[in-house]
Amino acid sequence: MKPTSRDIRTANRYEVLRQIIAESPTSRQELAVATGLSLATVATLVGELLDLGLITEVGFEDSAGGRPRGLVAVDPSGGALIGVDIAETYVHVELFDLALNVLARADEDLRPGESLPEQVVGHVAAGVGSVVAQAGVEAARVLGVGVSVPGQVDRDSGVAEYAPNLDWHDVPLLDLLAGHIAHPLYLDNPLRACVVAELWFGAARGRGDAVVVNLGTGVGAGLALGGGLHRGVSNSAGEWGHTTLVLDGRLCHCGGHGCVETYVGAPGIMQNLRELSPGSPLLHPGDQTATIDALARAVAEDDPVAVKTVRETARYLGAGISDLINLLNPEVVVLSSWVAARLGEPLLAEVRRAVARHALRRPLAATEIVLTPIPTDPVSLGAATFALEGALRSAGRRTPRRSATARSRTAPPS
Amino acid sequence: MKPTSRDIRTANRYEVLRQIIAESPTSRQELAVATGLSLATVATLVGELLDLGLITEVGFEDSAGGRPRGLVAVDPSGGALIGVDIAETYVHVELFDLALNVLARADEDLRPGESLPEQVVGHVAAGVGSVVAQAGVEAARVLGVGVSVPGQVDRDSGVAEYAPNLDWHDVPLLDLLAGHIAHPLYLDNPLRACVVAELWFGAARGRGDAVVVNLGTGVGAGLALGGGLHRGVSNSAGEWGHTTLVLDGRLCHCGGHGCVETYVGAPGIMQNLRELSPGSPLLHPGDQTATIDALARAVAEDDPVAVKTVRETARYLGAGISDLINLLNPEVVVLSSWVAARLGEPLLAEVRRAVARHALRRPLAATEIVLTPIPTDPVSLGAATFALEGALRSAGRRTPRRSATARSRTAPPS
Repeated sequence: MKPTSRDIRTANRYEVLRQIIAESPTSRQELAVATGLSLATVATLVGELLDLGLITEVGFEDSAGGRPRGLVAVDPSGGALIGVDIAETYVHVELFDLALNVLARADEDLRPGESLPEQVVGHVAAGVGSVVAQAGVEAARVLGVGVSVPGQVDRDSGVAEYAPNLDWHDVPLLDLLAGHIAHPLYLDNPLRACVVAELWFGAARGRGDAVVVNLGTGVGAGLALGGGLHRGVSNSAGEWGHTTLVLDGRLCHCGGHGCVETYVGAPGIMQNLRELSPGSPLLHPGDQTATIDALARAVAEDDPVAVKTVRETARYLGAGISDLINLLNPEVVVLSSWVAARLGEPLLAEVRRAVARHALRRPLAATEIVLTPIPTDPVSLGAATFALEGALRSAGRRTPRRSATARSRTAPPS
Repeated sequence: MKPTSRDIRTANRYEVLRQIIAESPTSRQELAVATGLSLATVATLVGELLDLGLITEVGFEDSAGGRPRGLVAVDPSGGALIGVDIAETYVHVELFDLALNVLARADEDLRPGESLPEQVVGHVAAGVGSVVAQAGVEAARVLGVGVSVPGQVDRDSGVAEYAPNLDWHDVPLLDLLAGHIAHPLYLDNPLRACVVAELWFGAARGRGDAVVVNLGTGVGAGLALGGGLHRGVSNSAGEWGHTTLVLDGRLCHCGGHGCVETYVGAPGIMQNLRELSPGSPLLHPGDQTATIDALARAVAEDDPVAVKTVRETARYLGAGISDLINLLNPEVVVLSSWVAARLGEPLLAEVRRAVARHALRRPLAATEIVLTPIPTDPVSLGAATFALEGALRSAGRRTPRRSATARSRTAPPS
């Protein structure tokens, strides 16, 4: 969608706060240099962030020969943010201070069959209540709760339109949650949560166009283009897992054939292993996590079948990532999610070699491929960041009000 | 790259002029409704365009019960724009008025072997001189000359970095042209020229994210994201022709295997025909144009081999376009360039069927696939539009000066 002047003001507000979070304490002058914004613009934005209580004045530094410069820093106690990661088998909740340090965590397991919206909502409410209590934060200081749910979401209406693994169709998730949670609520999916986490705190921060390749059970490519999240016209961009890598290849659960996901998602990697060594002891049929863990351990021990499986997976992955590089010409490609975390450096090294064979020389020279530097769960961090962005969107308004995507309380807090 | 406030002002200026070109005469009030900008912003931008002489006041219209509203229209005589399309075998030059009507054309053939930069520059200069003379336009009224050259270009330095079909490496094209041409010069490539033509005058105008699929000897996908051209971090985005469709498939001239281009570029289509019917009389070995023309005529006569060849080509093309739809979630996919023009509606119908089989349901529902509605050469139109954009970029400046990409005269005009 076409950016407006308001979008730019909001993006600049994000940029200044991002920089303050990364480099506290800092001066308006340093912020102007780091962001490329004028000193006057920085001063206005810093004023807004001070008014919101997100940052605080922390003294002065000498400047060579000039007036002492005022320093500002994030005010960790200025508010709290909550990120919720709803997956197929668990609900993970984290509470952050404004420097995005984790202050409390809660994990709720979803037992098999326990995926009705009301059941999941109950777990989310319990997890949110738990982290608030653990951290000893006053309810009024929670700026918002960001919720990530897999699949297609309509973030404006707060509806989980389609989550195949939960068997959800058009679930009005935020309305349901608003019955239990008194804070502003924001909905999106894990792919976009990971992109926003990379934009604010990870490898995409301060970079040009970036692609976040999520390698899990499913795979996707979150796109950070022009300094912001590319959502597409109906908020479904990033379905790289369902682009064709091998025409008429492996059958995919989407109904297509030869999709990237069937070769590099966790079940696809299991299939790569099975094709190389049908009776391999590394294979744990029906258990992706155990198989990927076994593979990671065996690669560390130079097991030839494991090394070959990672190489074959990287061959597919390298071709698919080269497609992203040739098409989008990004500055950085970030590998994220649990499969990337577990296979780590050995996978990265093989992927870099495969991409060097496949990608066009010029866009390849402009691109770096890295593992995500985010040490914690990027999905709950990204979800909390959606809540932070929501708080910032309402910052410049004369009459502060809740964002279109924020739901206010309709019932007493649980 | 991250958009700045200046980018937004420039984009708004483009948007207002686009709307005036599409709907002359029009009022500031109508422009505000059509563009979504405030009346105050529109009034400022209209004032700038009037000062530049690009538009003119053309009277008043009654508004129900209110003051009569001032009307503005494009001033066709307010300036001229020149678009240059450099290809492997010809140089095509068009001169446009400000309503982007073609006032004059010149074609210069490049004989085999006649592709040295100095030779091509001579043809460009001759073509530009010819259209200015034909149209009887004063040199001072030419706002700029946009030049499209295939391959990798650095538009800021005006260098044609790599044009394999011309065998050019790092040719300082704009500096060479500035020795012969006295107008501001702008350089880019045909893929991006076609995107800009669609954004201003074609199927992408006023739409959200759009993809322009260029089907010629080579193929590419120009990306119009967020209302503007997506260039990528080193200006090479759009190399969809070199994304993998069939892992380990047909050998591509890029050195890869199974690239989209090897199945749906003109030589790829000839190969599809050859595989279906090795001795087909439709095949004109070594002559892509004649083969594609023969194919188009035979499809119109329901020739079974021709119909099957188009269907097979559409199967590849449908898979590749589905990848773009799934990854980018665009509002419109536009088929452009000479192969799309010649195979026309029969190809479009087969492509739509193939995409419906391949693409994910939700992004598919948000996307339309169309043939370009631009009736003339989109490359020279787009090149001229780069010159118009250059003139508009300099519009809001206190001291008008030439854009960074415009080269001024270093020698008398030829």
